[in-house]
Amino acid sequence: MDPAEFRRHGHALVDWIAEYLAGSERYPVLPRVSPGDVRAALPADAPERGESFDAIFADFERVIVPALTHWNHPGFFAYFATSGSAPGVLAEFLAAALNQQAMLWRTSPAATELEEVSLAWLRRLLGLPDAFEGVIYDTASVSTLHGLAAAREAAIPGVREFGLPGRAGLGQVRVYCSEHAHSSVDKAVMLLGLGQRALMRIPADDRFRMRAGALRDAIAADRANGVTPIAVVATVGTTSMTSVDPVREVLDICRSESVWLHVDAAYAGPAAILPEFRAHFAGWEDADSIVVNPHKWLFTPVDLSAFYSRRMDMVRQTFSLVPEYLRTAEGSRGVRDLMDTGIQLGRRFRALKLWIILRHFGADGVRAVLSEHIRLARQFADRVDADPDFERLAPVPFSVVCFRARPRGFTGSSADLDELNARLLDGVNASGDVFLSHTRINGAFAIRLAIGHLRTTDAHVSRAWELLRAHAGAAATA
Amino acid sequence: MDPAEFRRHGHALVDWIAEYLAGSERYPVLPRVSPGDVRAALPADAPERGESFDAIFADFERVIVPALTHWNHPGFFAYFATSGSAPGVLAEFLAAALNQQAMLWRTSPAATELEEVSLAWLRRLLGLPDAFEGVIYDTASVSTLHGLAAAREAAIPGVREFGLPGRAGLGQVRVYCSEHAHSSVDKAVMLLGLGQRALMRIPADDRFRMRAGALRDAIAADRANGVTPIAVVATVGTTSMTSVDPVREVLDICRSESVWLHVDAAYAGPAAILPEFRAHFAGWEDADSIVVNPHKWLFTPVDLSAFYSRRMDMVRQTFSLVPEYLRTAEGSRGVRDLMDTGIQLGRRFRALKLWIILRHFGADGVRAVLSEHIRLARQFADRVDADPDFERLAPVPFSVVCFRARPRGFTGSSADLDELNARLLDGVNASGDVFLSHTRINGAFAIRLAIGHLRTTDAHVSRAWELLRAHAGAAATA
Repeated sequence: MDPAEFRRHGHALVDWIAEYLAGSERYPVLPRVSPGDVRAALPADAPERGESFDAIFADFERVIVPALTHWNHPGFFAYFATSGSAPGVLAEFLAAALNQQAMLWRTSPAATELEEVSLAWLRRLLGLPDAFEGVIYDTASVSTLHGLAAAREAAIPGVREFGLPGRAGLGQVRVYCSEHAHSSVDKAVMLLGLGQRALMRIPADDRFRMRAGALRDAIAADRANGVTPIAVVATVGTTSMTSVDPVREVLDICRSESVWLHVDAAYAGPAAILPEFRAHFAGWEDADSIVVNPHKWLFTPVDLSAFYSRRMDMVRQTFSLVPEYLRTAEGSRGVRDLMDTGIQLGRRFRALKLWIILRHFGADGVRAVLSEHIRLARQFADRVDADPDFERLAPVPFSVVCFRARPRGFTGSSADLDELNARLLDGVNASGDVFLSHTRINGAFAIRLAIGHLRTTDAHVSRAWELLRAHAGAAATA
Repeated sequence: MDPAEFRRHGHALVDWIAEYLAGSERYPVLPRVSPGDVRAALPADAPERGESFDAIFADFERVIVPALTHWNHPGFFAYFATSGSAPGVLAEFLAAALNQQAMLWRTSPAATELEEVSLAWLRRLLGLPDAFEGVIYDTASVSTLHGLAAAREAAIPGVREFGLPGRAGLGQVRVYCSEHAHSSVDKAVMLLGLGQRALMRIPADDRFRMRAGALRDAIAADRANGVTPIAVVATVGTTSMTSVDPVREVLDICRSESVWLHVDAAYAGPAAILPEFRAHFAGWEDADSIVVNPHKWLFTPVDLSAFYSRRMDMVRQTFSLVPEYLRTAEGSRGVRDLMDTGIQLGRRFRALKLWIILRHFGADGVRAVLSEHIRLARQFADRVDADPDFERLAPVPFSVVCFRARPRGFTGSSADLDELNARLLDGVNASGDVFLSHTRINGAFAIRLAIGHLRTTDAHVSRAWELLRAHAGAAATA
């Protein structure tokens, strides 16, 4: 593609994307396609001869666009709602062209040092001390994996070299988290060879917070039985209902037991930028490792997960390995090479978008958006609370509301009520105006409304509420 | 950022990137900065108030651009040279705006099915049978990790649940690879809890190919000692000298021993698209898992690693875990949810660029570029061979040449010769016109010239040779 062609197609894309970012509401949030539709619309083989970008783009509009779930739609309220903000999108465009590979300082001084700078900016906004060193991974799953890998190395010296089968006297090991912790903790424990049974899920209290007393008892019982504790994962903002584990109390237990504390604040972390929300995080400033995902609630296109650790030396001890073909003069002089703190050798220039986004919004701009999201969530919770046909199922510490319909006079079983709410959710999502997801809370089917998109306003939340009320009646009589 | 602003900055970026892609030769390949320069040029904190994109972009040009290592420069000959091709860059721009999260079919039918389609296209180009199912990961390190994780699950049933410490009778385990295999194999073995000592590096022959007989003997000796073999990693295109393990022979051993075979063709894989190179890969069509990286030698901006397995059921058995908040009606009806085959829950829309690139180039366009790269490498090797002051240190099966200067009449020690070549490499790289890297071969310092950029021509390779010859004289007398 010559420069003239690139300009022509690039300018057309800019216009298309400008329209898309401002006008994604023209699409249904959830696409109206069936499994196999995309596959069936495309040939089984790559073309033998190259095709024009115009032809490719026509197929993009014909086949791909109708099958997109519009995460970048202000009516997206499912899972954790996110935004690929305009400056973040421009940053990714630039990063793709530069095609940096930040494995060594030498292979991209810019990406290496901008990662340090932008993570330091974010760290200071979050109120974390300088003792935390940061590194960018792709996802929270991978960040938590790195935290637990380092914890494993710290708890079982030499495991990197000798492995778990090589530690004959080791016996059982344990990782602890709340019953509401994310499935990525299970996956990390499985991948690390500890086995899913090594993960103990500690019961939560009536506000869905890990019971610190139960954690203390579990560790004591394990120690008495010769089980080796490796790490505790505390969550600030659990996936189902964004509950907040008592980090300070968990921290005190971890300190007295010399167990690694990893804090999963993948979603809620940015709320620490708001002074009035800092209290939810109290204690994380002394954790061993922390994950915060700018691609969740900081307007950053996927993927970018920020990992911080006070013990990056242990992360390095777990992962650093420098073959001859990656040795550099700078590396041997102590320059930081980012490949030393991770499983991934290839590392794209993710810091660019974080840097551009933080500058574009500024600290006050970030605070304004987060505050507005939290206000919208509280307002929605108030509507649920005020409506006799609905009930809220969990507190709303951040920007997610868990609730269900429970029509006045409803006399069915709890299974019937679950069924009613599942139908309600399907009906609302079929509108195309909004997309909400679900979870289960104390066994009950719960609808979740998550606010996190930059362009979500009162009007979108009101539309969700209007649809919920309208469909609740229909679902009740179906 | 409103649509008008987005258009203004977007159009300016298109022009900047068009210039960059066509004119990256205006920059030195290796930047002329010192450690700390970028950090020192930027403030310690994020701004309190948002800044204009113009101000941010001015700093990008002032601070970031001078500190880039230009991977997208046709004089980049280090490591594995890559290209972020123009259509790939446009695809990434689009993907960032769409901000898809392809964890579930529902969360992006388009990304889920396009991943299947584009990987099937690539698979058929590579000549691999339909029995291989594909999934896209970020890097080859992560692909190899998944292959070995599935191998561990296959060799040690129940390890996902009970872990390695829970398998009391397990004893030692082993993974085998060539002495020239990539460090990602070590890192995977370490992360999986097998321990680096569980990795046995099998000696290679004089063409740097794993000795199949030595592998057979090693497995037999391990079995006799109660060690459990888990997997063999065969490499087609090793990192140092792109040597090719005898995949067919290794496969036969793996089959008779019931050991998982993972083929690392991260770099060289695309060469299987060339019929005359298919023989190098003979046997991989029966491997258990394979990694090929389009972001290395298939013009794709980082990151995109294609993983194929005949035993994706085992990958699923290793990783699948569906919490309530990720359950969908389609998922329970057997639609493929891509989160089930990986450690990462978050998955961006990487398939878009692969699909666009394969259509843009077409199969014949891909073959033409790869053939030209191989021709350029052979021509360079011929120059080395014909010059009495240089010597080649390894065969050139693909597009990488390993060599060193050895001036006529050189009488120094081998350490002196290493020193001379290290100086030579530094001198050549200081030119800014080219960037080559090094390795060690049989203990000797070897310079590597790797060809893989779309816009690399005879002129760039000739310039590298001219610089090498000019600096060789200087290095010899320094």
